[in-house]
Amino acid sequence: MNKQFCRCLLALIVFCASISQSFAFEKDPAIVKKVEALLAQMTLEEKVGQVSQIAKDVLEQGRGRFDEHAMKRVIVEYAVGSILSGGGGYPAPNSPQEWAKMTNMFQKYAEQTRLQIPLIYGVDAVHGHAAVKGAVVFPYDINVAASFNPELAEKSAELTSETLAATGIQWNFAPVLDIARNPKWGRTYETFGEDPYLASIMGARMIQGYQKSGKVAACAKHFVGYGAAESGLDRQPADISERTFREVLFPPFKAAVDAGVRTFMINSGEVNGVPVHASKWLLTDILRKEFGFAGFVVSDWEDPKKIFAYHKAAPDLKQAIARTFNAGLDMSMIPMTLEEIELLKEAVNEGLVPMERLDDAVRNILYVKYELGLFENRYVDDAQAETAFTKAEQAETARMLARQSITLLKNASNTLPISNEVKRLLVAGSGAESKSDLCGGWTIDWMGAKEEDLIVGQTILAAIQDKIGATAQIDFLPDSAGRDQLLEAGNAADAIIAVVGEKSYAEMRGDRQDLSLSPEQQAMLDALSATGKPIILVIVSGRPLLIESAAQAAKAALYAYLPGTEGGAAIADVLFGDYNPAGRLPFSIPKHLGQVPLRYNDRINTTYEPLFPFGYGLSYTKFTYANLQAPTTVKQGEPLTVSVDVTNSGNVAGDDVVLAYYTNKYASVTPRRQQLCGFQRISLQPGETNTVTFTITPEQLIVYNETLQPVEELRPIFLKIGQLQAKIDIISNQ
Amino acid sequence: MNKQFCRCLLALIVFCASISQSFAFEKDPAIVKKVEALLAQMTLEEKVGQVSQIAKDVLEQGRGRFDEHAMKRVIVEYAVGSILSGGGGYPAPNSPQEWAKMTNMFQKYAEQTRLQIPLIYGVDAVHGHAAVKGAVVFPYDINVAASFNPELAEKSAELTSETLAATGIQWNFAPVLDIARNPKWGRTYETFGEDPYLASIMGARMIQGYQKSGKVAACAKHFVGYGAAESGLDRQPADISERTFREVLFPPFKAAVDAGVRTFMINSGEVNGVPVHASKWLLTDILRKEFGFAGFVVSDWEDPKKIFAYHKAAPDLKQAIARTFNAGLDMSMIPMTLEEIELLKEAVNEGLVPMERLDDAVRNILYVKYELGLFENRYVDDAQAETAFTKAEQAETARMLARQSITLLKNASNTLPISNEVKRLLVAGSGAESKSDLCGGWTIDWMGAKEEDLIVGQTILAAIQDKIGATAQIDFLPDSAGRDQLLEAGNAADAIIAVVGEKSYAEMRGDRQDLSLSPEQQAMLDALSATGKPIILVIVSGRPLLIESAAQAAKAALYAYLPGTEGGAAIADVLFGDYNPAGRLPFSIPKHLGQVPLRYNDRINTTYEPLFPFGYGLSYTKFTYANLQAPTTVKQGEPLTVSVDVTNSGNVAGDDVVLAYYTNKYASVTPRRQQLCGFQRISLQPGETNTVTFTITPEQLIVYNETLQPVEELRPIFLKIGQLQAKIDIISNQ
Repeated sequence: MNKQFCRCLLALIVFCASISQSFAFEKDPAIVKKVEALLAQMTLEEKVGQVSQIAKDVLEQGRGRFDEHAMKRVIVEYAVGSILSGGGGYPAPNSPQEWAKMTNMFQKYAEQTRLQIPLIYGVDAVHGHAAVKGAVVFPYDINVAASFNPELAEKSAELTSETLAATGIQWNFAPVLDIARNPKWGRTYETFGEDPYLASIMGARMIQGYQKSGKVAACAKHFVGYGAAESGLDRQPADISERTFREVLFPPFKAAVDAGVRTFMINSGEVNGVPVHASKWLLTDILRKEFGFAGFVVSDWEDPKKIFAYHKAAPDLKQAIARTFNAGLDMSMIPMTLEEIELLKEAVNEGLVPMERLDDAVRNILYVKYELGLFENRYVDDAQAETAFTKAEQAETARMLARQSITLLKNASNTLPISNEVKRLLVAGSGAESKSDLCGGWTIDWMGAKEEDLIVGQTILAAIQDKIGATAQIDFLPDSAGRDQLLEAGNAADAIIAVVGEKSYAEMRGDRQDLSLSPEQQAMLDALSATGKPIILVIVSGRPLLIESAAQAAKAALYAYLPGTEGGAAIADVLFGDYNPAGRLPFSIPKHLGQVPLRYNDRINTTYEPLFPFGYGLSYTKFTYANLQAPTTVKQGEPLTVSVDVTNSGNVAGDDVVLAYYTNKYASVTPRRQQLCGFQRISLQPGETNTVTFTITPEQLIVYNETLQPVEELRPIFLKIGQLQAKIDIISNQ
Repeated sequence: MNKQFCRCLLALIVFCASISQSFAFEKDPAIVKKVEALLAQMTLEEKVGQVSQIAKDVLEQGRGRFDEHAMKRVIVEYAVGSILSGGGGYPAPNSPQEWAKMTNMFQKYAEQTRLQIPLIYGVDAVHGHAAVKGAVVFPYDINVAASFNPELAEKSAELTSETLAATGIQWNFAPVLDIARNPKWGRTYETFGEDPYLASIMGARMIQGYQKSGKVAACAKHFVGYGAAESGLDRQPADISERTFREVLFPPFKAAVDAGVRTFMINSGEVNGVPVHASKWLLTDILRKEFGFAGFVVSDWEDPKKIFAYHKAAPDLKQAIARTFNAGLDMSMIPMTLEEIELLKEAVNEGLVPMERLDDAVRNILYVKYELGLFENRYVDDAQAETAFTKAEQAETARMLARQSITLLKNASNTLPISNEVKRLLVAGSGAESKSDLCGGWTIDWMGAKEEDLIVGQTILAAIQDKIGATAQIDFLPDSAGRDQLLEAGNAADAIIAVVGEKSYAEMRGDRQDLSLSPEQQAMLDALSATGKPIILVIVSGRPLLIESAAQAAKAALYAYLPGTEGGAAIADVLFGDYNPAGRLPFSIPKHLGQVPLRYNDRINTTYEPLFPFGYGLSYTKFTYANLQAPTTVKQGEPLTVSVDVTNSGNVAGDDVVLAYYTNKYASVTPRRQQLCGFQRISLQPGETNTVTFTITPEQLIVYNETLQPVEELRPIFLKIGQLQAKIDIISNQ
């Protein structure tokens, strides 16, 4: 070929490629105009400040003793764009009013900058505004998933957002949209479990809840592949095929973009050898160009530095910082130092980071600040802050969500609800006396709350006493009770409630290579089993523990996950029949450690023999499924509608979670065992029948073929609801 | 753009792409001419027969009762290209002569076909020609790896090949080049362990050994990603990034191509949702175009069918067959049926498989048959067959390899070698009485041999008796001995040799989700520990078992892997000091199950706290390393030469395995913890010093960068030999 023609050809190819990748963001032109006008006035110093986020700890000399010099330096001189409270980043005293005063004060300093750009203040309100003393602590997202109730999920997020806004906080680092790939991971409880469809629905609804008022930005985190380390441990290397990204890990994040999430936070780990904070493929090609995300992207705590210091994927700190901004980062969570702001400035001056890239980052941040109305009003009325926290809807909603999440795994001989013939009850296990255990990590402090800091809600023991303390004798023994004590108290009781699980933890400190109950808890159960009295097992843990022998020894078993401050009451409601449980497992519970990781939706040739499968959960009543209505064919590109009649064939009212799965009879790639494609939570009176209808979209039926193209392949699928199954042929629409 | 111009553009792009992917195979033009002449004469029926391989079981009516009708039908009418003996596929009686008679007979039928194309006969002689009764069973490849002795590896393969050729077998389905990614896998012992460099060196040398005579084709198997299932189990789904393929899984197979391997066998599992037998990317783009492989590719047992029946990645059997041939398969191991030959014919007639593709497959097979000289002489002298098996070099080499592989893990208070003051010795553990345990699977039968079928070699117990039976009393107790018996015999002994490990197994039947010792063996060790007598632990297992408490209870511990029929004698040689051990672990031994999988060369941020690390192994003498000579810089593209002085500073002669590792101080992607880049096994007399020199090639120093381009990045590396370390800067060659 002629050389000039070739060059021309190349230019054309590049041009075509750039067209096909561009994405039309639908931004508000009025805001864009304001952003451009402001950006045009900004100096390099103001720009590198704007893309930086500092922890409030830097502004203090010891908790609550704010340092005027530091505030002037950080907020005014460096003109940082954002402040955050990390885990435990509360003011002193830790009250709603004090939070509001604090954020107002910081905004006051920001107003002293040349351009008076407001700060955006961020916190991890991942289960309610739980860093605030007096806040209702909501059930964790693993409970939200177990409730299979998107409306309630959205409501809980909206209520959380109200408390955030009341304390002058515009940014919630939530929800966690990572798929729980391995329960060894210390953040499993922050996720919506192992299913990407469930996580997508719940994540999108919570984002809508958080952002409903228009005053708070949600944050889809941690994009992407976090919690998928091969070892299962936090921030350890993950090896992930592009197929798994597309089929499992991307969907909740794509759903977040479609739900209008305003910010993204990046996975602190590394995937396929590349620290995600340095991955242009993920941060730009996928997130911006493919998903069309138009908000801004923040790093996680100190992660730009870790590209250099931990991953060793840059020769020095400056190049690490340059690399992450070039990959697509907009704001760096530098928390504890100003050095990196200087280094970013140098990097821009030296041409390591193009000015256009920095401008783009600033644009993305300013746009969100305008959207949130921060330029019009950055202050809150601190005197009113507490009102949002104390309104009855907070605790009521949290308790309802906790009730709806609790999952009944076993109920031999209708041991539950506990009959009023039980006149003496032994409650065993230290977890029954702890609100902190119910709340988990990121409650007041990073690793969880001290008991005395949890001033709302009830322990399980207190809730039980409230419920039946007047009519029955209740004994209590902790994990540490001796065998003789346990035998004596057990023998004296009509029934035993044994509470087992984990103490609170967060992040890597919650990583475990074993998932057994503690030796103390195991010994306690052994002793209680020896009494022969009916044992009701209550598991308080945000991940699947190895409970095979414990569940075998018990007559009944409840998984409560981490139900928050109202969890004690919710558990008592279920134990005594004031609420009929309908939660479903959002993860698989393995029989033994050698099965980990175990997931219901892996490919068909995976051995899947769990103790309890994903989606499992019993009720105090009985539901019967009949009359599965499904077409024999569905055309490509058209929705598939199926329905089933659900009857409450038992004696008490209750909720049922109807789950629809499908699998491919065959496809061009190996099918998954099952894929959840629809769920509905319904309430039925005894004898009542309801027809539940599912509409499955063509997008849900695509196959990523051998070359990863999404194609709705022509093939038979099996659609399954309960024990009913229908075969449906996907046929050509020609 | 103008539409016609666009089309023209597209055509040009496709054209350019096809040029860049073509690869110049250097085939012998004289053979190519013969192949083309023969191919031109072949009918469609002869072609589909040529690409088919049938198990010899189909030709029998019960073992050894060959069925003339079946032989005529399969070999003459269907004109199949190949016959194989699967695991246990021996004739009756099972003797070298009978094997030779059998293969001669099959060739006789092949001579009755129109074109008289010879058969190629294949077996799994993965550790000697071990299906033959009377054959020396060589140590398994996991032992070969532990020996770190490539010369001995090659020699053992050459000796195996002699026995194959003597029985009329031209094709060995060996070596296994899969990396042992997870010890739960039942084929771990068939691999060279967890390191790709070690597997590359050993694999290439064994291929050279197998193929040295020119009469036998080796087979690089199982391409690729086998043994990398996430669950660790056989043929279960694997999720593998392209980076891991390139850095870990491809190298041994690329080395096999470079070493001239004549055939490849395909991974029976699926990778990233695609059954590897259907993966055009792996079978054609990588294997043919990128690696330049010019031989032929065979399926594994029934795997084309499994694309349909197991992976559900095709709607029917015919399309499954078409898919695998289109992906790049040349020969289908159909073992038990002729139906698929008919279906392939139909597929070609219907245009599902292009005739060009079928022709290409036939070409690849015929080329190898010509290369092996089969057209000149396809028969062997059956009367001479036994000679190759009985020559002394077979047993001598096997014993030397076994000795060199045995790895000393612990030797407190110089418990080993056993002193001649030990006058009464207890040998405990059923493994001490079993030759079958020493040999593992694929010995006589698929699952391993019955004791009576192993007519050469010795058990551990017999070898110990031979060694010291005249001077000491030797008691023996099996695993099943009671605690009292063990205590009594242990108390009476001066020392105890406890043999633990696994019974023989193969493939999926050897998969284990737990890697603990059996409860019987654990109880045996508990009882023996209670005696307080020194315990010498001998582990007979082709994978890392969980031996933490066992090793703790023992004074000394040896890992013997699966050392074959001569393994008993080799173990006794080491126990009594007739051989000074120098084997090194080719895998990491974890402390507990929660650590699995554990590999020394994962990325730096992986927690690596093994019980014993990869490369670990002690000696009866002591080696001192000094004077590490390394340049401070090395230019891109130039080899790096380093040397170290090794001194035997102990009192006895011995071998040392000197291991050189490097890691990147940083790179554009996260470095691995360590990468083995050189090893040498040397023998030193007491007081002797040897300078060991390593030359590390530029190819060994490349980094696959963020976009997976192989680049020798400019960066500092740390080179480590023993405790010595040097920093070397890779600098520009400009």
